[in-house]
Amino acid sequence: MQYLNIIRILGLLVTILSVTMLPPALVSLIYRDGGGVAFLMAFILCLITGFSFWYPNRNQKGELRAREGFLIVVLFWTVLASFSAVPLMLLDNPSLSITDSFFEAFSGLTTTGATIITHIDGLPHAVLFYRQQLQWLGGMGIIVLAVAVLPMLGVGGMQLYRAETPGPVKDSKMTPRIADTAKHLWYIYLSLTVLCALAYWLAGMGPFDAIAHSFSTIAIGGFSTHDASIGYFNNPMINLVCVFFLIVAGINFALHFAAFQSKSIRTYIFDPEFKTFISIQVILTLICFVVLIASGFSDSYESAFDDALFQAVSISTTAGFATTNFSEWPTLLPLMLIFASFIGGCAGSTGGGMKVVRVILLYLQGIRELSRLIHPKAIINIKLGRKALPDRVVDAIWGFFSAYAAIFTICMLLLIASGIDEFTAFTAVAACLNNLGPGLGEVAANFASINDFSKWVLILAMLFGRLEIFTLLVLFLPSFWRD
Amino acid sequence: MQYLNIIRILGLLVTILSVTMLPPALVSLIYRDGGGVAFLMAFILCLITGFSFWYPNRNQKGELRAREGFLIVVLFWTVLASFSAVPLMLLDNPSLSITDSFFEAFSGLTTTGATIITHIDGLPHAVLFYRQQLQWLGGMGIIVLAVAVLPMLGVGGMQLYRAETPGPVKDSKMTPRIADTAKHLWYIYLSLTVLCALAYWLAGMGPFDAIAHSFSTIAIGGFSTHDASIGYFNNPMINLVCVFFLIVAGINFALHFAAFQSKSIRTYIFDPEFKTFISIQVILTLICFVVLIASGFSDSYESAFDDALFQAVSISTTAGFATTNFSEWPTLLPLMLIFASFIGGCAGSTGGGMKVVRVILLYLQGIRELSRLIHPKAIINIKLGRKALPDRVVDAIWGFFSAYAAIFTICMLLLIASGIDEFTAFTAVAACLNNLGPGLGEVAANFASINDFSKWVLILAMLFGRLEIFTLLVLFLPSFWRD
Ligand SMILES: [K+]
Ligand SMILES: [K+]
Repeated sequence: MQYLNIIRILGLLVTILSVTMLPPALVSLIYRDGGGVAFLMAFILCLITGFSFWYPNRNQKGELRAREGFLIVVLFWTVLASFSAVPLMLLDNPSLSITDSFFEAFSGLTTTGATIITHIDGLPHAVLFYRQQLQWLGGMGIIVLAVAVLPMLGVGGMQLYRAETPGPVKDSKMTPRIADTAKHLWYIYLSLTVLCALAYWLAGMGPFDAIAHSFSTIAIGGFSTHDASIGYFNNPMINLVCVFFLIVAGINFALHFAAFQSKSIRTYIFDPEFKTFISIQVILTLICFVVLIASGFSDSYESAFDDALFQAVSISTTAGFATTNFSEWPTLLPLMLIFASFIGGCAGSTGGGMKVVRVILLYLQGIRELSRLIHPKAIINIKLGRKALPDRVVDAIWGFFSAYAAIFTICMLLLIASGIDEFTAFTAVAACLNNLGPGLGEVAANFASINDFSKWVLILAMLFGRLEIFTLLVLFLPSFWRD
Repeated sequence: MQYLNIIRILGLLVTILSVTMLPPALVSLIYRDGGGVAFLMAFILCLITGFSFWYPNRNQKGELRAREGFLIVVLFWTVLASFSAVPLMLLDNPSLSITDSFFEAFSGLTTTGATIITHIDGLPHAVLFYRQQLQWLGGMGIIVLAVAVLPMLGVGGMQLYRAETPGPVKDSKMTPRIADTAKHLWYIYLSLTVLCALAYWLAGMGPFDAIAHSFSTIAIGGFSTHDASIGYFNNPMINLVCVFFLIVAGINFALHFAAFQSKSIRTYIFDPEFKTFISIQVILTLICFVVLIASGFSDSYESAFDDALFQAVSISTTAGFATTNFSEWPTLLPLMLIFASFIGGCAGSTGGGMKVVRVILLYLQGIRELSRLIHPKAIINIKLGRKALPDRVVDAIWGFFSAYAAIFTICMLLLIASGIDEFTAFTAVAACLNNLGPGLGEVAANFASINDFSKWVLILAMLFGRLEIFTLLVLFLPSFWRD
């Protein structure tokens, strides 16, 4: 293992991270909200630490292998999220414990959007901005992770996308390819954010809220600057803007890139994952709409549709925004939406969950197993679009699902062992593992009432979810550490 | 599809079933409890119906293919369980609705052991005997299904056992082989039942209770002749007898047969599934024991150990007997045991759940997926004992797990949609799908308070569990019905 090279890279990343402490400090300067000192101190701390890790090892370069790739990805998220917790620990308002600071930072950077803060409207602008920015940076990281890094590492069947990744395909070397891919993806990511902020502003948000929510929308993060989330604005136009950009951000960014290159909307229409993704949103919206009307829960068709569409898209894409307290909806709906968050967004999007393409493949693989029972000697290929799937991908998808279920169960049992009721435990783990954000029961609004031990379990769940289980799990294999 | 041949076989089975109505009638005669008429009427009805299906088609013989095999297995359980519900519908005590009669009959014959009867101690002896006998017959069916039929049909990876099945291996024809295998297995099944009844009697049960409980013990069924289950006897010796025979019945009957043939106890010791199965019992007992002591729930080490051992083995083997109301145990234990029932007994036993060998293989396959990430080009075989696993088995095991999870989720959502609270729904579906019996929450004691719609969903769950998901699921594939 090239430890010094890894320390060099992390040092560099922490140095870059330090710069992200400056915009909140600037916001603090504009709004004179007294939150600036903490961010300046964090800036200096990150800069010094990052630099002192990087500088002594600045010449420790070497071609990275898969093994180092996994370690860097895991450290990328854990180290950056830990340093991101620093200003939160230093602040007076909110006054957060160490555990809570870590929870909020990991929740931000993994774009989970679960919060332990109970009175968000009272926070300084600098903190509000910082939380939104954390999600936006996390979303950036995820796009590169999901489109460029994981396919190369072959995590959870994502080698499926290996050939499709934009950038120089023939080059098998890791670093230059990731850098080139990242550049293209970030242009798209940045453009979408700007468009989203403009749309929010035109729909009626103030400039600060528009920028803040564009960050957490494109990152499918779900943090808001208000306790009532998007519901604060009580504006159907804003709700529609949010829904539109959530769906856009829930699509594979490699597909956006392909559509951009070919300048054709047909690129989307021929993509099987896109079609399923859209169908899921339509079906969930319809079910919610019908049940809300039938149960007499909504007083008009318009508000029923507005509520149904927003909550269906927000929960199933794993954003976790809300315009109404959907946990009080009739019986089945809240849990149905939580289950939909297990599907989540498309692979290569900023959405969480298991990803639409994996669910499609699980379904196709299940049908194949059934067909094999009737035709034991037939050779049946699984096809996604026009591509036949290699056996390795099939194995990896089954494995991903099983590992997902195992991690889910273990985390849930740990929460219950710590004294949390079963229903809350179930939805809290789902909300964190799927990088969704809000759960049901005691964690419908926030995670403040959860005990510290469980908060750490949930932090781990967020990481497992965001790193697609295997990236993190592989580190637990003893042979990973043997050379 | 050879429909007439299938009707012939089912007619024959129903005719045989009619004979099983006579022992309860006889019991009624001995105890003069007034339950006899219903069983005599059911006897006549089954005899006439069975005969009139069989007789016109008695010459419709033909070699059965896999497709007919699936249909017969499914119809075997559904048709026999439906006819078994007849005497329950006819009885005055208990006075059961049609839905409840079906629920009780399916729960009996699938050895689930969930009951909708609230006052079991007050039932006529004939009914008590009938319920126990249902489980015993169901257990018999399962042994043959699991050891001989499913491996041949290749359901859920059980082709793994194809070569091991006792009986003439080279004969690929279905009927004679199943018949021969069945004979051997039933000798073992019968002998164990006799031994179990004797042991119960020696430990202090009356003859009726001893026979009745031996039926539901060897079948890992869980029906009892008392509301308080085995706890009624309040006798540690009886508890030990129960635990011993549950473990014996939870072992692969093909392994019993092999041990019997080789006359060596070492046959067990070299079996990887056996070792894991025993380890699971030991670990669960220890956890329960430690928590019961540490939480001050038990007043002595003896009673803590007695309670821990009994409940751990009874729930994790999916028997569902109880000596104490374990649903009131400290936080984690009840749910931990329910989760253990997902593992269940060994393949080829009368236990339910996903089966120990599948969980072992899921674990090994998961490790292989992780190893593949580090060594992408290595060819890694999965070995169980000394056998390398074919890819088909690997696929089938993953598929089985995914289908299990999917069926579980759908059933649970249906129960919640019908108005049942989430926790009860979760444990009720687990209890039925794993053929365990009692759940937690509202179904900790019985299923009487559940609505009719949900009872039918749970009946389906019992069937899915007992038929190892795929046997039933394959019938939903349109191509199954095309010739
Ligand atoms: K989120
Ligand atoms: K049972």
